[in-house]
Amino acid sequence: MFKYIVVGAGLAGITIAERIANELNEQVLIIEKRGHIGGNVYDCYDEHGILIHKYGPHIFHTNNKKIWDYLSQFTAWKEYQHKVLGYVDGQLIPIPFNLNTIDKLFPAGMAARYTNKLIQTFGYGIKVPILELNKTEDVELRQLAQYVYEKVFLNYTTKQWDVSPDKVDGAVTARVPIHISRDDRYFQNTYQGMPLLGYTKMVENILNSNKIKIMLKTDFKEISQFNKNKIEIFEKTFNGKIVYTGNVDELFDYTFGELGYRSTKFDFEYIQEQHHQSVATVNYPNNYDFTRITEFKHMTGQKNTYGTTILREYPQKYDRNIVGRDVPMYPVLDDSNQQIYNKYKQEAEKYNNIIFAGRLAEYMYYDMDAVIAKALDTFKKLCRQ
Amino acid sequence: MFKYIVVGAGLAGITIAERIANELNEQVLIIEKRGHIGGNVYDCYDEHGILIHKYGPHIFHTNNKKIWDYLSQFTAWKEYQHKVLGYVDGQLIPIPFNLNTIDKLFPAGMAARYTNKLIQTFGYGIKVPILELNKTEDVELRQLAQYVYEKVFLNYTTKQWDVSPDKVDGAVTARVPIHISRDDRYFQNTYQGMPLLGYTKMVENILNSNKIKIMLKTDFKEISQFNKNKIEIFEKTFNGKIVYTGNVDELFDYTFGELGYRSTKFDFEYIQEQHHQSVATVNYPNNYDFTRITEFKHMTGQKNTYGTTILREYPQKYDRNIVGRDVPMYPVLDDSNQQIYNKYKQEAEKYNNIIFAGRLAEYMYYDMDAVIAKALDTFKKLCRQ
Repeated sequence: MFKYIVVGAGLAGITIAERIANELNEQVLIIEKRGHIGGNVYDCYDEHGILIHKYGPHIFHTNNKKIWDYLSQFTAWKEYQHKVLGYVDGQLIPIPFNLNTIDKLFPAGMAARYTNKLIQTFGYGIKVPILELNKTEDVELRQLAQYVYEKVFLNYTTKQWDVSPDKVDGAVTARVPIHISRDDRYFQNTYQGMPLLGYTKMVENILNSNKIKIMLKTDFKEISQFNKNKIEIFEKTFNGKIVYTGNVDELFDYTFGELGYRSTKFDFEYIQEQHHQSVATVNYPNNYDFTRITEFKHMTGQKNTYGTTILREYPQKYDRNIVGRDVPMYPVLDDSNQQIYNKYKQEAEKYNNIIFAGRLAEYMYYDMDAVIAKALDTFKKLCRQ
Repeated sequence: MFKYIVVGAGLAGITIAERIANELNEQVLIIEKRGHIGGNVYDCYDEHGILIHKYGPHIFHTNNKKIWDYLSQFTAWKEYQHKVLGYVDGQLIPIPFNLNTIDKLFPAGMAARYTNKLIQTFGYGIKVPILELNKTEDVELRQLAQYVYEKVFLNYTTKQWDVSPDKVDGAVTARVPIHISRDDRYFQNTYQGMPLLGYTKMVENILNSNKIKIMLKTDFKEISQFNKNKIEIFEKTFNGKIVYTGNVDELFDYTFGELGYRSTKFDFEYIQEQHHQSVATVNYPNNYDFTRITEFKHMTGQKNTYGTTILREYPQKYDRNIVGRDVPMYPVLDDSNQQIYNKYKQEAEKYNNIIFAGRLAEYMYYDMDAVIAKALDTFKKLCRQ
C-alpha cells in the first residue's frame, strides 16, 4: 500500500513527505502522535482570535536562498525583523547586547570608551561571545564582559539550563554574544520573516498533495512492532522505507536509557489592551521564573483586534510523563547523553529501512532552516538507498 | 489491530467513534477524506482572526435533553437564539414570517385584520405552512398566503432547489411557515446555542480519547477494496466492523447511478467595519443570486475585533468534480433518487460488517441533533450485532 512511512509531522517529516509525494510521485503515510500537524511550529488562533505559536515564538531566518525559495513555494511572507529587549536593572535594553545597549546602560564617557575599545580590539560589526570577551587583556573590557555575563547571561542561562554556564555546550553559549554594532535586530540573516498566513497554513500547503495521508493522534509504537529486525506495521511486515523523526530512545523502548532534554511550560495570557510591550519578545534574565514574555501581535502583524495574547515561558526539566514538562525542547548535549545517543544510533543501523531525520531523531538543536536543509539532504540519501 | 473503522469524521462518525472508545473501551480508526475533522460543522479562525463556519452557518438547537446533555460533556455553551431577517420590498423583515412581519409590511388596519383572522382560523402560536394557508376559504388570508408565497418563498425556493416549489419534497417546504406569534426567533427549541469555543474545539473534545486514531486526507477507497464480499483494508482482510458515513454511491463506484444533491458555493468576505448587518443571517429571497448573507460575529459572540467576516451562499447543482460544487449539502429527495438509493441499500446488506450512519450514508436531511440521536442509536445497533 504505502512504500513510505514518515513518523512525525514536524518540519523534517513534512519536508521529506513533500519530496516523496511531489518528486518521487509516491504515496506516503505520515504518522503523528499529536492531534495536529506542524510539530513545534504549529500556530493557531486562540479563543480570542489572536494568532499564537503554541510551542513558543518561531521566527524564520536564513541565509540559505535555496531553503527560502523552497518554502516560498508554499507561503508568501510577511517581512519581519525580530527585535528583543532585555529587562535589566529596571530598564529595557536591546538584546543581543550591542553598542546601543552600552549607550543605554552607561554614562556617556564610559560608553564611548567601551565602544572605542571594542571596535579597536575586535572590529566593527563583529559578534564576540562574552566568555571570549572575558579573556581580553584590557581591564575595562573585562569589566564590561563581567557586567554582561552577570546581568544578561548568567541568570538567564541558569534559568534556562539549570546548570552553571560553563557546563553548557559551547554551541549554546555562542548564541549570547556582544554585537559590536548599532544593529538592534536579533538576527542578521538575509532572509527573515513570518509565513503570511501563519506556519500551520504553510505546513498545510506543504502537505497539499493527495499522495500524502496523515494519521493523527497515533503513536508509531501503537501501529508498529519490531520482529527479528523486521518492522511490522498494521500487523503486516513492512517492506517500504520509514523516515523516523521522533525520539530515538522512545523508539527502542529506552533500552540504553533516556536522553536528557530541557522542556518549557507555556503560559498564555489574553490581555484586554492593544499591546502589552513594545516588541515581540522581552527577556527577563534576572527577574521572575520565566525567561521571556512574547507578544505575538508584534511578529504576526495582526492588527484588527482590541486585545493581545502574551506567552510566558518557564524552563522545566523534561519529563515525558508530566504535563507541562513533556515537550522535549532543547537536548542537553553533555557527554553522558551523547554516549547514550550513540548507542541508539548503532542500534538503529541494524534496521536498513529506517532513516533518521530532524531535531529529535538526530538529538541536535537545529534552527528551522537547518532542519529543512537537513531533511532535503536526507531525502536525497533516501533516494540513493 | 483495529476492531472498528469509522469512515468520515462528521458528527455521525465522531459520535459513534466516541462511544466505541469510551463505552466499549476499544480502539477505533477514523478515516476522513478532508484535511480536518468535524465534517460540515468545522469552524476555524480566518486570516483576520474571525471565527467562521467553513461550510455555512450552524446553530445548534434541540428539544432533546439527552442530546443536549450528551454534547454538554464536551463543550460549554454560549446562549444564543438565532434570528433571521429577510430583505423584501426594500425592507428587512423578520423571518419566519410572523405577526411582527405583518405589522412591518402592511398598513395598520390591514395588518390588524390579517392578524385577527390568522389567530381566529389557526390559533395563536401556531406555525402554518404557507401552501396550507393558501387553501383557506378567506380571500384576504389567501391574498396574504399569495404575498408570502411570492415574496418570501417562491424565489428563495427556486434559487435553492432550481425547480418550482411544488416539485420540492414537503418536508423541505414545511420549513417555511407563517408563525402566528410575536416570537421573532428562527427556532423555538428548548435548547439552543453555540459551542462556547466553537464546533471544532467541541469535536476535538469528543475525539479526545487516545483510543481514537484519525487518518486525514484519506479516501476510504484508497485504503480498502472489496474482494468477494470481503473487505480488505491496508491489503489485509478486515474482520472488524466498519461504520460508513460517506456517500453510498461513491462506496459502490456509482454502479446504480449518482445520487442527486444540491451544493453551495461559499463566498467569504472580510469587511473592515464593526458590523455588516444587525443579525446573524439576512435572507435575500428576491434579489441577487445568493440566498443569504451570514455575519458570524453575531452568532459566535466574538467582540474583540475591528473587522467582520460575512458569508454569501450561492446554491449550485452538485458536481463532485467541480470545485465550488463538490460539497453534497442537501439531498434531492425525488422518486428517481430514492430508487437509486434503495438499490445501494440492498447492495450494502450483502456486507454484514458495514453499518451506515449520517446524512450522506442515509441520504437524508438531518439537523445536527437528529444526526447525533441517530448515531447513538446506530451505536446501540452496532453493539447488538
